[in-house]
Amino acid sequence: MSAASCYLFRNLPDEKMGALHAVSHLQTIPKEQWLFHKGERAEYIYLVEEGAIELVMPVEPDIEIPVALIRPGNGCVGVGALLEPYTYSLSARCKEDTRLTVIARADIYALFESDPEFGSTVMTNLAQRLLERLRETREEVKIHFMNLIQSATFS
Amino acid sequence: MSAASCYLFRNLPDEKMGALHAVSHLQTIPKEQWLFHKGERAEYIYLVEEGAIELVMPVEPDIEIPVALIRPGNGCVGVGALLEPYTYSLSARCKEDTRLTVIARADIYALFESDPEFGSTVMTNLAQRLLERLRETREEVKIHFMNLIQSATFS
Repeated sequence: MSAASCYLFRNLPDEKMGALHAVSHLQTIPKEQWLFHKGERAEYIYLVEEGAIELVMPVEPDIEIPVALIRPGNGCVGVGALLEPYTYSLSARCKEDTRLTVIARADIYALFESDPEFGSTVMTNLAQRLLERLRETREEVKIHFMNLIQSATFS
Repeated sequence: MSAASCYLFRNLPDEKMGALHAVSHLQTIPKEQWLFHKGERAEYIYLVEEGAIELVMPVEPDIEIPVALIRPGNGCVGVGALLEPYTYSLSARCKEDTRLTVIARADIYALFESDPEFGSTVMTNLAQRLLERLRETREEVKIHFMNLIQSATFS
Protein backbone atom coordinates (compact mmCIF):
# COMPACT_ATOMS: atom_id res chain seq x y z
CA MET A 1 0.00 0.00 0.00
CA SER A 2 1.25 3.46 -0.88
CA ALA A 3 -0.24 4.94 2.30
CA ALA A 4 3.25 5.78 3.54
CA SER A 5 3.63 8.19 0.62
CA CYS A 6 0.26 9.89 1.19
CA TYR A 7 0.48 13.19 3.07
CA LEU A 8 -2.32 12.10 5.44
CA PHE A 9 -0.17 9.34 6.91
CA ARG A 10 3.12 11.19 7.26
CA ASN A 11 4.85 10.74 10.61
CA LEU A 12 2.88 7.61 11.50
CA PRO A 13 4.92 4.81 13.07
CA ASP A 14 4.92 1.36 11.43
CA GLU A 15 2.45 -0.26 13.81
CA LYS A 16 -0.17 2.40 13.01
CA MET A 17 0.43 1.92 9.30
CA GLY A 18 -0.17 -1.78 9.91
CA ALA A 19 -3.49 -1.07 11.62
CA LEU A 20 -4.49 1.10 8.66
CA HIS A 21 -3.45 -1.58 6.19
CA ALA A 22 -5.62 -4.11 8.03
CA VAL A 23 -8.80 -2.09 7.39
CA SER A 24 -8.09 -1.12 3.77
CA HIS A 25 -8.86 -2.98 0.56
CA LEU A 26 -7.94 -2.67 -3.12
CA GLN A 27 -10.26 -1.69 -5.94
CA THR A 28 -9.66 -1.31 -9.69
CA ILE A 29 -11.62 1.24 -11.71
CA PRO A 30 -11.52 1.56 -15.49
CA LYS A 31 -10.41 4.67 -17.36
CA GLU A 32 -13.05 7.42 -17.74
CA GLN A 33 -15.21 6.08 -14.92
CA TRP A 34 -16.19 8.54 -12.19
CA LEU A 35 -15.07 7.65 -8.68
CA PHE A 36 -17.40 10.21 -7.10
CA HIS A 37 -19.16 13.47 -7.86
CA LYS A 38 -19.01 16.76 -5.96
CA GLY A 39 -21.70 16.92 -3.28
CA GLU A 40 -22.16 13.16 -2.94
CA ARG A 41 -22.01 11.61 0.51
CA ALA A 42 -18.38 10.73 1.25
CA GLU A 43 -17.78 7.38 2.95
CA TYR A 44 -14.32 6.49 1.61
CA ILE A 45 -10.88 7.93 1.03
CA TYR A 46 -8.79 6.58 -1.83
CA LEU A 47 -5.03 6.26 -2.34
CA VAL A 48 -3.82 5.90 -5.91
CA GLU A 49 -1.66 2.77 -6.33
CA GLU A 50 -1.49 2.72 -10.15
CA GLY A 51 -2.97 4.98 -12.80
CA ALA A 52 -4.23 8.50 -12.16
CA ILE A 53 -7.26 10.32 -10.78
CA GLU A 54 -8.32 13.69 -12.13
CA LEU A 55 -10.00 16.08 -9.66
CA VAL A 56 -12.30 18.63 -11.24
CA MET A 57 -14.69 21.34 -10.09
CA PRO A 58 -17.93 21.07 -12.10
CA VAL A 59 -19.16 24.49 -13.21
CA GLU A 60 -21.92 23.87 -15.74
CA PRO A 61 -23.14 20.57 -17.25
CA ASP A 62 -20.41 20.72 -19.92
CA ILE A 63 -17.82 22.88 -18.16
CA GLU A 64 -15.36 21.84 -15.46
CA ILE A 65 -12.27 23.43 -13.93
CA PRO A 66 -9.32 21.00 -13.59
CA VAL A 67 -8.00 21.12 -10.03
CA ALA A 68 -5.39 18.35 -9.69
CA LEU A 69 -4.09 15.09 -11.16
CA ILE A 70 -3.32 12.54 -8.46
CA ARG A 71 -0.78 9.83 -9.28
CA PRO A 72 0.75 7.11 -7.08
CA GLY A 73 2.73 8.67 -4.27
CA ASN A 74 1.39 12.20 -4.58
CA GLY A 75 -1.65 12.12 -2.39
CA CYS A 76 -5.09 10.75 -1.89
CA VAL A 77 -8.60 11.73 -2.88
CA GLY A 78 -11.86 11.93 -0.99
CA VAL A 79 -10.74 13.54 2.26
CA GLY A 80 -14.24 15.04 2.51
CA ALA A 81 -15.00 11.62 4.02
CA LEU A 82 -13.01 12.62 7.11
CA LEU A 83 -14.81 15.89 7.88
CA GLU A 84 -18.38 17.02 8.37
CA PRO A 85 -20.68 17.28 6.44
CA TYR A 86 -19.02 14.17 4.91
CA THR A 87 -19.51 15.13 1.29
CA TYR A 88 -17.01 15.24 -1.58
CA SER A 89 -15.83 18.79 -2.45
CA LEU A 90 -14.82 17.96 -6.02
CA SER A 91 -15.57 15.32 -8.64
CA ALA A 92 -13.02 12.57 -9.32
CA ARG A 93 -12.59 10.65 -12.57
CA CYS A 94 -10.11 7.95 -13.55
CA LYS A 95 -7.77 9.33 -16.17
CA GLU A 96 -6.39 5.83 -16.78
CA ASP A 97 -7.29 2.36 -15.54
CA THR A 98 -6.63 2.93 -11.86
CA ARG A 99 -5.91 0.73 -8.86
CA LEU A 100 -6.85 2.23 -5.52
CA THR A 101 -6.50 1.49 -1.84
CA VAL A 102 -9.88 2.20 -0.26
CA ILE A 103 -10.37 3.07 3.42
CA ALA A 104 -13.82 3.59 4.92
CA ARG A 105 -14.46 6.55 7.25
CA ALA A 106 -15.99 4.22 9.84
CA ASP A 107 -12.76 2.18 9.97
CA ILE A 108 -10.38 5.11 10.15
CA TYR A 109 -12.53 6.79 12.82
CA ALA A 110 -12.49 3.58 14.88
CA LEU A 111 -8.68 3.73 14.76
CA PHE A 112 -8.74 7.39 15.85
CA GLU A 113 -11.01 6.51 18.74
CA SER A 114 -8.83 3.71 20.05
CA ASP A 115 -5.66 5.74 19.50
CA PRO A 116 -6.06 9.54 19.75
CA GLU A 117 -2.42 10.09 18.78
CA PHE A 118 -3.20 8.46 15.43
CA GLY A 119 -6.13 10.87 15.02
CA SER A 120 -4.08 13.86 16.06
CA THR A 121 -1.31 13.07 13.54
CA VAL A 122 -3.68 12.42 10.62
CA MET A 123 -5.81 15.48 11.35
CA THR A 124 -2.72 17.70 11.64
CA ASN A 125 -1.54 16.40 8.26
CA LEU A 126 -4.97 17.02 6.78
CA ALA A 127 -5.25 20.56 8.18
CA GLN A 128 -1.75 21.26 6.87
CA ARG A 129 -2.69 20.22 3.35
CA LEU A 130 -6.02 22.09 3.44
CA LEU A 131 -4.20 25.26 4.53
CA GLU A 132 -1.79 24.88 1.58
CA ARG A 133 -4.71 24.39 -0.82
CA LEU A 134 -6.53 27.37 0.69
CA ARG A 135 -3.44 29.57 0.23
CA GLU A 136 -3.07 28.47 -3.40
CA THR A 137 -6.76 29.07 -4.07
CA ARG A 138 -6.59 32.53 -2.46
CA GLU A 139 -3.68 33.35 -4.78
CA GLU A 140 -5.95 32.44 -7.72
CA VAL A 141 -8.63 34.78 -6.39
CA LYS A 142 -5.98 37.49 -6.06
CA ILE A 143 -4.97 37.07 -9.70
CA HIS A 144 -8.60 37.27 -10.86
CA PHE A 145 -9.06 40.33 -8.65
CA MET A 146 -6.00 42.05 -10.15
CA ASN A 147 -7.28 41.27 -13.66
CA LEU A 148 -10.61 42.85 -12.77
CA ILE A 149 -8.90 45.99 -11.48
CA GLN A 150 -6.73 46.22 -14.59
CA SER A 151 -9.65 45.77 -16.96
CA ALA A 152 -11.63 48.38 -14.99
CA THR A 153 -8.68 50.76 -15.20
CA PHE A 154 -7.90 50.35 -18.88
CA SER A 155 -11.36 49.86 -20.40
CA MET B 1 -12.39 33.59 28.02
CA SER B 2 -14.49 33.14 24.90
CA ALA B 3 -12.53 30.03 23.89
CA ALA B 4 -15.67 27.93 24.30
CA SER B 5 -17.27 29.88 21.46
CA CYS B 6 -14.27 29.51 19.12
CA TYR B 7 -14.63 26.77 16.52
CA LEU B 8 -11.16 25.43 17.38
CA PHE B 9 -12.26 24.43 20.87
CA ARG B 10 -15.63 22.90 20.09
CA ASN B 11 -16.29 19.55 21.76
CA LEU B 12 -13.58 20.03 24.38
CA PRO B 13 -14.55 18.98 27.91
CA ASP B 14 -14.30 21.52 30.74
CA GLU B 15 -11.01 20.28 32.17
CA LYS B 16 -9.27 20.75 28.82
CA MET B 17 -10.74 24.24 28.54
CA GLY B 18 -9.28 24.89 32.00
CA ALA B 19 -5.83 23.73 30.86
CA LEU B 20 -6.09 26.07 27.88
CA HIS B 21 -7.19 28.95 30.07
CA ALA B 22 -4.16 28.40 32.31
CA VAL B 23 -1.73 29.05 29.43
CA SER B 24 -3.54 32.01 27.85
CA HIS B 25 -3.28 35.72 28.62
CA LEU B 26 -5.18 38.88 27.72
CA GLN B 27 -3.93 41.70 25.51
CA THR B 28 -5.55 44.97 24.42
CA ILE B 29 -4.75 46.50 21.05
CA PRO B 30 -5.91 49.92 19.86
CA LYS B 31 -8.08 50.53 16.80
CA GLU B 32 -6.22 50.60 13.45
CA GLN B 33 -3.17 48.80 14.80
CA TRP B 34 -1.98 45.71 12.89
CA LEU B 35 -1.96 42.47 14.84
CA PHE B 36 0.16 40.71 12.22
CA HIS B 37 0.96 40.79 8.52
CA LYS B 38 0.68 38.05 5.94
CA GLY B 39 3.89 36.02 5.73
CA GLU B 40 5.15 36.89 9.20
CA ARG B 41 6.24 34.08 11.49
CA ALA B 42 3.18 32.93 13.46
CA GLU B 43 3.71 32.22 17.15
CA TYR B 44 0.27 33.04 18.58
CA ILE B 45 -3.41 32.46 17.99
CA TYR B 46 -5.88 35.12 19.12
CA LEU B 47 -9.49 34.93 20.28
CA VAL B 48 -11.50 38.13 20.10
CA GLU B 49 -13.03 39.03 23.49
CA GLU B 50 -14.18 42.58 22.69
CA GLY B 51 -13.94 44.69 19.56
CA ALA B 52 -13.28 43.31 16.07
CA ILE B 53 -10.42 42.08 13.90
CA GLU B 54 -10.44 42.56 10.16
CA LEU B 55 -8.67 39.89 8.07
CA VAL B 56 -7.43 41.08 4.69
CA MET B 57 -5.39 39.70 1.81
CA PRO B 58 -2.81 42.30 0.75
CA VAL B 59 -2.62 42.58 -3.04
CA GLU B 60 -0.56 45.69 -3.79
CA PRO B 61 0.84 48.31 -1.39
CA ASP B 62 -2.47 50.19 -1.45
CA ILE B 63 -4.88 47.41 -2.35
CA GLU B 64 -6.29 44.70 -0.10
CA ILE B 65 -9.12 42.20 -0.42
CA PRO B 66 -11.32 41.98 2.70
CA VAL B 67 -11.65 38.36 3.79
CA ALA B 68 -13.48 38.34 7.14
CA LEU B 69 -14.46 40.41 10.17
CA ILE B 70 -13.95 38.47 13.40
CA ARG B 71 -16.03 39.53 16.41
CA PRO B 72 -16.36 37.97 19.88
CA GLY B 73 -17.79 34.49 19.61
CA ASN B 74 -17.31 33.99 15.87
CA GLY B 75 -13.86 32.59 15.70
CA CYS B 76 -10.20 33.21 16.19
CA VAL B 77 -7.35 34.55 14.11
CA GLY B 78 -3.80 33.39 13.51
CA VAL B 79 -4.33 29.65 13.06
CA GLY B 80 -1.25 29.67 10.81
CA ALA B 81 0.54 29.42 14.18
CA LEU B 82 -0.72 25.84 14.50
CA LEU B 83 0.53 24.50 11.15
CA GLU B 84 3.81 24.43 9.26
CA PRO B 85 5.42 26.61 7.97
CA TYR B 86 4.06 28.62 10.94
CA THR B 87 3.37 31.82 9.06
CA TYR B 88 0.24 33.99 8.93
CA SER B 89 -1.80 33.53 5.72
CA LEU B 90 -3.53 36.90 5.91
CA SER B 91 -3.00 40.26 7.56
CA ALA B 92 -5.04 41.21 10.64
CA ARG B 93 -5.94 44.72 11.76
CA CYS B 94 -7.98 45.94 14.72
CA LYS B 95 -11.17 47.51 13.41
CA GLU B 96 -11.92 48.84 16.90
CA ASP B 97 -10.07 48.88 20.21
CA THR B 98 -9.84 45.14 20.73
CA ARG B 99 -9.29 42.84 23.68
CA LEU B 100 -7.82 39.46 22.82
CA THR B 101 -7.03 36.17 24.49
CA VAL B 102 -3.57 35.16 23.32
CA ILE B 103 -2.31 31.56 23.24
CA ALA B 104 1.25 30.68 22.21
CA ARG B 105 1.88 27.78 19.82
CA ALA B 106 4.47 26.34 22.22
CA ASP B 107 1.85 26.18 24.99
CA ILE B 108 -0.92 24.67 22.93
CA TYR B 109 1.47 22.11 21.43
CA ALA B 110 2.61 21.12 24.92
CA LEU B 111 -1.05 20.43 25.75
CA PHE B 112 -1.43 18.35 22.57
CA GLU B 113 1.65 16.35 23.49
CA SER B 114 0.50 15.53 27.01
CA ASP B 115 -3.04 14.80 25.80
CA PRO B 116 -3.35 13.54 22.20
CA GLU B 117 -7.15 13.54 22.40
CA PHE B 118 -6.97 17.31 22.92
CA GLY B 119 -4.80 17.58 19.80
CA SER B 120 -7.06 15.32 17.79
CA THR B 121 -10.18 17.35 18.66
CA VAL B 122 -8.58 20.75 17.97
CA MET B 123 -6.98 19.61 14.71
CA THR B 124 -10.25 18.06 13.52
CA ASN B 125 -12.01 21.37 14.24
CA LEU B 126 -9.28 23.26 12.41
CA ALA B 127 -9.34 20.96 9.36
CA GLN B 128 -13.13 21.28 9.31
CA ARG B 129 -12.96 25.07 9.20
CA LEU B 130 -10.17 25.10 6.60
CA LEU B 131 -12.24 22.80 4.37
CA GLU B 132 -15.22 25.18 4.67
CA ARG B 133 -12.99 28.15 3.77
CA LEU B 134 -11.46 26.22 0.87
CA ARG B 135 -14.93 25.40 -0.47
CA GLU B 136 -16.02 29.04 -0.21
CA THR B 137 -12.84 30.22 -1.90
CA ARG B 138 -13.27 27.68 -4.71
CA GLU B 139 -16.78 29.03 -5.27
CA GLU B 140 -15.23 32.49 -5.70
CA VAL B 141 -12.81 31.09 -8.29
CA LYS B 142 -15.76 29.46 -10.04
CA ILE B 143 -17.60 32.79 -10.23
CA HIS B 144 -14.50 34.53 -11.67
CA PHE B 145 -14.10 31.65 -14.11
CA MET B 146 -17.73 31.97 -15.29
CA ASN B 147 -17.29 35.73 -15.72
CA LEU B 148 -14.22 35.11 -17.86
CA ILE B 149 -16.13 32.63 -20.02
CA GLN B 150 -19.04 35.04 -20.43
CA SER B 151 -16.83 37.97 -21.34
CA ALA B 152 -14.94 35.75 -23.83
CA THR B 153 -18.27 34.65 -25.34
CA PHE B 154 -19.90 38.06 -25.61
CA SER B 155 -16.96 40.29 -26.43
